[in-house]
Amino acid sequence: MSSQISARRLARDLGEWRSHRAAYLALADRVRVMLIDGRLASGSRLPAERELSSALQISRTTVAAAYAQLREERYLRSVRGSGSTLALPDGQRGPVQLTQELPLDFSKAAAAAYPGLPAAYQFAVEQLPHYLSHQGFDMQGLPELRSAVADHYSERGLPTTPEQVLITLGAQHALSLLTHTLHSPGERVLIEHPTYPHAIDTFLAAGARLLAMPVTSAGGWDITEGQLLIRRSAPSLGFLMPDFQNPTGASMSVEDRQRLARIAAREGTVLIADETTAQLDIDRGPLPPMASFSSSIVTIGSLGKLAWGGLRIGWIRGPKDLMAKVLRNRPAMDLGTPLVEQLASIYLLRETQLMTANRSRELRGGRDFLAAELTEHFPQWKLQLPDGGMSLWINTGDISSSALALAARSEGLAIVPGPRFGLEGAFERFLRIPFTYSREDLKEGVGALLRASHTAGSIPSKLPLQAVI
Amino acid sequence: MSSQISARRLARDLGEWRSHRAAYLALADRVRVMLIDGRLASGSRLPAERELSSALQISRTTVAAAYAQLREERYLRSVRGSGSTLALPDGQRGPVQLTQELPLDFSKAAAAAYPGLPAAYQFAVEQLPHYLSHQGFDMQGLPELRSAVADHYSERGLPTTPEQVLITLGAQHALSLLTHTLHSPGERVLIEHPTYPHAIDTFLAAGARLLAMPVTSAGGWDITEGQLLIRRSAPSLGFLMPDFQNPTGASMSVEDRQRLARIAAREGTVLIADETTAQLDIDRGPLPPMASFSSSIVTIGSLGKLAWGGLRIGWIRGPKDLMAKVLRNRPAMDLGTPLVEQLASIYLLRETQLMTANRSRELRGGRDFLAAELTEHFPQWKLQLPDGGMSLWINTGDISSSALALAARSEGLAIVPGPRFGLEGAFERFLRIPFTYSREDLKEGVGALLRASHTAGSIPSKLPLQAVI
Repeated sequence: MSSQISARRLARDLGEWRSHRAAYLALADRVRVMLIDGRLASGSRLPAERELSSALQISRTTVAAAYAQLREERYLRSVRGSGSTLALPDGQRGPVQLTQELPLDFSKAAAAAYPGLPAAYQFAVEQLPHYLSHQGFDMQGLPELRSAVADHYSERGLPTTPEQVLITLGAQHALSLLTHTLHSPGERVLIEHPTYPHAIDTFLAAGARLLAMPVTSAGGWDITEGQLLIRRSAPSLGFLMPDFQNPTGASMSVEDRQRLARIAAREGTVLIADETTAQLDIDRGPLPPMASFSSSIVTIGSLGKLAWGGLRIGWIRGPKDLMAKVLRNRPAMDLGTPLVEQLASIYLLRETQLMTANRSRELRGGRDFLAAELTEHFPQWKLQLPDGGMSLWINTGDISSSALALAARSEGLAIVPGPRFGLEGAFERFLRIPFTYSREDLKEGVGALLRASHTAGSIPSKLPLQAVI
Repeated sequence: MSSQISARRLARDLGEWRSHRAAYLALADRVRVMLIDGRLASGSRLPAERELSSALQISRTTVAAAYAQLREERYLRSVRGSGSTLALPDGQRGPVQLTQELPLDFSKAAAAAYPGLPAAYQFAVEQLPHYLSHQGFDMQGLPELRSAVADHYSERGLPTTPEQVLITLGAQHALSLLTHTLHSPGERVLIEHPTYPHAIDTFLAAGARLLAMPVTSAGGWDITEGQLLIRRSAPSLGFLMPDFQNPTGASMSVEDRQRLARIAAREGTVLIADETTAQLDIDRGPLPPMASFSSSIVTIGSLGKLAWGGLRIGWIRGPKDLMAKVLRNRPAMDLGTPLVEQLASIYLLRETQLMTANRSRELRGGRDFLAAELTEHFPQWKLQLPDGGMSLWINTGDISSSALALAARSEGLAIVPGPRFGLEGAFERFLRIPFTYSREDLKEGVGALLRASHTAGSIPSKLPLQAVI
């Protein structure tokens, strides 16, 4: 399936693509970085030169030169009769592979494993013999694990029974299961803007039309806009990270939780509260879970951030009826959650307090160190110190984050530019930098960014700033 | 999302629903079993009584009585203004849960764990510390594991590099990833008929229109029909289990593999060869892998059947370019394969020969024992002894397998009726019985079927036999 990208869509998604470089090079740069970071799909076809030149209001010669440049660099292949097809040069296999090749990978907001992990897996292996005489397929989750997850919600003030919990292969898998259960192609989905890139991927893959509710590091959510969007467009789903939002680090106030829960319940929009980051508290303290404000709110969570990304256990917490529906849809996607992973998770959930304290200490150190480094080397960048989460969401002022991310690659650093977290080229002046790396790596990464910023240059000042700051 | 079932579709899918019971009870029975085994979705709305009576050419009183019966049993809820909605009574959560409640569960063709499994996980736990300093997210699979899978194909005469292998969360997950990558809603997919039920689920969830190529235990594949369907309807995908097909147990001849591979390559249909059952050989011996006949054929495999269902490791083997595309699509569904599962799999793949020999011995015993039991107690049933796989595919003559499965539930036995393996109510006179259970369980299961067959009664002889025998 190779798809045609329309000139209008490309013009919109390119965002502020101009730089200090010649226009054809700036255009080629932007297309290349969008291909590398996944905003444009390998195998899709670029619009005809004439159409793009008209959509961008630039000369056809410039577009032709940009395409020639991309062809020269092997990012574009021209096949007679089927136009110009985007392609990653051999050996470059999308963001995952690309970043693995670079010495420093700042593309993931995730940390090293909790030190108790080997003991958890050892426990799992010891328990295993009790389970081997069964066939092992487990679509719903072990009763002990579902109890442990339920208890963890009850302790946070949200009474929960094991029947309200379904164990999944991580929170992203949970989101995908929920989307396939609750959403039909063509329906609308409300997202935070910016939001987690792979949530956008999940909704777009399910044929959703996205509605963006702005959120900023300093100001939090534009709930009035969210209410308006829900009332006007009746989205089937809304996707939120109310605690230490990824990427902004913002936390939703109790009042805003109430307001959003109320309107969603009234209009029949199912809110999915993604709590994968909820336990990454540095200096905020607990807030009531989103789901405590309405029984129709569905929560997803996981052990990926708190324990380890190599442990793939997440869950859905919601109404019993919904769990039954998800369970029915699941076999079309996968046949269940591995038992050893579940057994290890039973052990780990007993150590939630220890894990949380351990992570909090690490995160505080990383956050403060990175903020100090950035303040020293990029005094013109604006950042709001978050009180939790795993990354800083930085306003880079007149530096284009796509250009910076591209230049950083030459310096050996993989980093995801701002627009990957938004729609239609937004957040070109924003950059997410995770602080979950060692001090050495953070120092080296900031150095690479500094060198890259000299190459990348600034966005021409005649261009308007993005609406969302 | 509650969907309306049209009278025409229901009439078609009901198949041969009449039994020796009064018509309204027979109709209620059939709807109930279709709800229980997943052919009808909980939450969907039945057609209006008048429409169904016209589609089935029976009196409206009969339909009304059937609906009343279902309502009485709490399988149907009538809400003013929104018709009659199917529902599983509280506590019944679809096939997975339902079967867990019964003493004997013959719904899965899967076996107990390979005895070497604890050692494999112990190995994994010992290797784990080398991986804990990384973030652990692994979308592609560990290089060592991909090498081991590649070697396993090369040894079978299909030269393979690690770049051609992507590790997944089991074969069903692999199928789902491939379907989302290679198929667009509305396109056609060629399936074997009968086939694995959850493959049907995956294709229907992706909006596919299915084309059925007949396959039988004794006669194998109707390749001429398959060729015709591919030529006429140009399906995007074809899904095959060429070795010990589930449920028929048939193996495709070398000549048929060649013929099918040739036409698919010519017409641009991507064939997916599901080899999850390929190593369940009892007395056949090796045949060349499907993919050795065309470089465009994609193979999926897993350790689920050979090692254990609680170990969720599968893979895709195909062209390098395709792996890159799948990798791009994967984050919309999940964020990777657990590392401990992968490490255990590296250990297990070294023992492939041992695992295969072990499984083969078990399967031979189970097959011969079950066949003898059935021949003794159901002399009128026709069965072809398969030379591999995990189940018998039995022609039950004039006994309706849906009625039998329903009656068996009262005897404490969960079993999947024939129509779950096909389209439009086909295979009502077929039953799949896995022989992977202990002799005690098999004996008890056959006893339960025998008692159930007295209650279930036979299909009235005036009805025509199914086309596919």
